[in-house]
Amino acid sequence: MRSVIKLSPMGIASVVLTLAMTVAHATDPLPSWNDGEAKSAIIEFVQRITRKNSPDFVPEPERIAVFDNDGTLWAEQPLYFQLIFALDRVKALAPKHPEWKSKEPFASLLKGDVKTALAGGEHAALEIMRATHAGTTAAQFEKIVKTWIATARHPTAGQPYTNMVYQPMLEVLGHLRAHGFKTFIVSGGGVEFMRPWVNEVYGIPPEQVIGSSIKTKFEMQNGNPVLIRLPEINFIDDKAGKPVAINQHIGRRPIAAFGNSDGDLQMLQWTTAGEGPRLALYVHHTDGEREWAYDRKSKIGRLDKGLDEAQTKGWTVVDMKKDWKVIYQSKAQ
Amino acid sequence: MRSVIKLSPMGIASVVLTLAMTVAHATDPLPSWNDGEAKSAIIEFVQRITRKNSPDFVPEPERIAVFDNDGTLWAEQPLYFQLIFALDRVKALAPKHPEWKSKEPFASLLKGDVKTALAGGEHAALEIMRATHAGTTAAQFEKIVKTWIATARHPTAGQPYTNMVYQPMLEVLGHLRAHGFKTFIVSGGGVEFMRPWVNEVYGIPPEQVIGSSIKTKFEMQNGNPVLIRLPEINFIDDKAGKPVAINQHIGRRPIAAFGNSDGDLQMLQWTTAGEGPRLALYVHHTDGEREWAYDRKSKIGRLDKGLDEAQTKGWTVVDMKKDWKVIYQSKAQ
Repeated sequence: MRSVIKLSPMGIASVVLTLAMTVAHATDPLPSWNDGEAKSAIIEFVQRITRKNSPDFVPEPERIAVFDNDGTLWAEQPLYFQLIFALDRVKALAPKHPEWKSKEPFASLLKGDVKTALAGGEHAALEIMRATHAGTTAAQFEKIVKTWIATARHPTAGQPYTNMVYQPMLEVLGHLRAHGFKTFIVSGGGVEFMRPWVNEVYGIPPEQVIGSSIKTKFEMQNGNPVLIRLPEINFIDDKAGKPVAINQHIGRRPIAAFGNSDGDLQMLQWTTAGEGPRLALYVHHTDGEREWAYDRKSKIGRLDKGLDEAQTKGWTVVDMKKDWKVIYQSKAQ
Repeated sequence: MRSVIKLSPMGIASVVLTLAMTVAHATDPLPSWNDGEAKSAIIEFVQRITRKNSPDFVPEPERIAVFDNDGTLWAEQPLYFQLIFALDRVKALAPKHPEWKSKEPFASLLKGDVKTALAGGEHAALEIMRATHAGTTAAQFEKIVKTWIATARHPTAGQPYTNMVYQPMLEVLGHLRAHGFKTFIVSGGGVEFMRPWVNEVYGIPPEQVIGSSIKTKFEMQNGNPVLIRLPEINFIDDKAGKPVAINQHIGRRPIAAFGNSDGDLQMLQWTTAGEGPRLALYVHHTDGEREWAYDRKSKIGRLDKGLDEAQTKGWTVVDMKKDWKVIYQSKAQ
C-alpha cells in the first residue's frame, strides 16, 4: 500500500519552516572554534546542565558563569590596556602638573620611558593610579573612559582596544546566555574602567561587572549629590580576592569560570569546589603570530601554577593557536 | 442600514478570551493599598516610564528599583531582627565561653538585660558582632541563619520573623518586576544575614542583595577552598554608604527608591538626582495598633530629616495606618 500525503500551501509552508528551524538548531553555536577537546567541553557542559530530568540539571537562577577580562575576553599585551589608559591620562594631565617633569614616576613616563617609571613597583603604580583614577566624580570618570575607549588606538595593532576582544569568547558568552546563564566579569581591572563599555561590547550589564576599585565618597556639591573618587584603594579583585568578591557581590558559587592567568586560579578552584557539574577553562596564549605567545614567565598574565593545576584537575585548556579559527571579532580582521 | 456581525464558535471564543484578558488587566496590582496619593504615585510612575513613544519611557535594563529592608520590607521593632539573632547566638554560644559570665556586654545579655549590654554603644555592638557573626566559614554561617530564621519567633508577635514582612510592599515588588524592573535590597543589615531567606520571601536573588559586611578571607582547608568570616568590618551600608554601595554594586543610578528612615535619605537623594521621572517613597510608621508608631525620636528607624526633606521635595510618604489595608503578609494575619 502506497500512502499519499497531500500538502496544502499552508502545509508546505509549515514543513519549510520546520526544516529551517531544524537547520537553525543544528547551526554551530561556536563557529570560530575548531573541533577539539576545548570546544566539546563547553558544548557538552551546557548540554549536561540543561537536560531536564537529569541529575545534572541546574535551574536557571543558578547558572552563573564568571569571566576574567584581561587576556580572557580581550588582549592584554604589551601592557594591560587600563595601564595604557593611565599613561595616556598622565600625558593629558601633564600641562596642569609642571612638577611632574622632575618627579618620578611621572618624569620617566613623560619621556616615554615606561620601564623606568614602573621600576618603582607598587609605589609607582599607586602614584599613577592616584594621579589618573581619582579626584573626579564617578560621572566625570565615566566620560573620560568613554572618550578614551572611543578614540585610543593600540600601539602595535593600530586598532581601537574594543576591536581586540576575542571572537571565540564572545560566542561562548552568547551560547551560555542563550541557555539561561547570567554572565559576570570578575576582573583585576577597575570596575569603573570597564562598566562604560562592556555592556555594548560583551553584552554584560553594569550590575554584572565585578572588579578592583578605589574608595568613593558621597557628598553634596551645590545641593547636588555626587560621588567623589578618592586616591585610596578599596579592593583588589585578583587571586584570593576573586572568590571573596564573588561571594560579596553574587552571593552564590558560579558553575563555570573562565580565566587565563594565575590571578584566576582561586576563582577556578572556588568554582570547581561546588557540587555537581562544573566547567573551569583556561585560555592559553599560544599564538605568537595572530596574537601573543606567553605563559609561565610573562610579567603580564603569567600562567604557571594554574597550568599545572589545570593538568592535575583535568580543567579545559584552550590552545589559542590550535583551537581558535579567528582571534579578534570580525571588525578587526 | 443594519449591520449584522456573525460570529463563528472560534470567533466567540476569541471575544471571550479578549474580555477575560481585559478583566485581568484591570485587576488591581496593589490590592492591599487603600486608594490615595501613595498608591496613585506608584501606579502612575510605572505607567509613565513604561509608556512607549513617551519622552519619559525608560528601557527595561535601566528600570532599577532599590529597597531598604528593616522597616521598609519587614518590621524592625523592638530591635532590628538581626540584633535579636545576635543575642540568640550569644545564648547559644555561651556554654563554650564561660568567661562571658563576667565580661560585658555578654554578662548583661546573658542576664537578659539588653539595655545595659547595649549601653556600651559602638564598642559593645562590635564585640557582639565579632562573637556572633565571625569565626565560621560563609557556608556555615548560611546554615546558622537558615536554622534561626526557620525556628525563631518574634518576642511579642510570637510569629516567625519572615511572617512580619509587609504585604503591601510585596505587592510593590511584584508590580515593579511585572513591568521589567530589577529589584535590589540596599540595607544596613548584613548581606550574609539576608541572602539565605530573601529570595524565597521577597523573590530577590542573592546577586541583587546589597548590605553591610564583614571581611572574609579565602583559604585552603585540607585541599578544600573556604571563605572564613573575619571579626572586622568591611563596609557599613547605611546613610552616605548607600549611594556608594549602589554605585559599587549596581553601577547605574536607580529610578525608584524605597526607605523608611534617615538612614535611607542619601539613597533617596541619589536616586532622585538623576534625569527623567523618579520615584522616592518613605514608609512612615504611623500604626501603633497593627504595628508600631515611631518616627522623629525613635532609636530604631528614626525618620526625622527624611520626613522634612520628603515634604520639601514632594516625595511620596506612606501613612501605614491610612494607606495600608493589611500590614503583614496573609500567613501572619
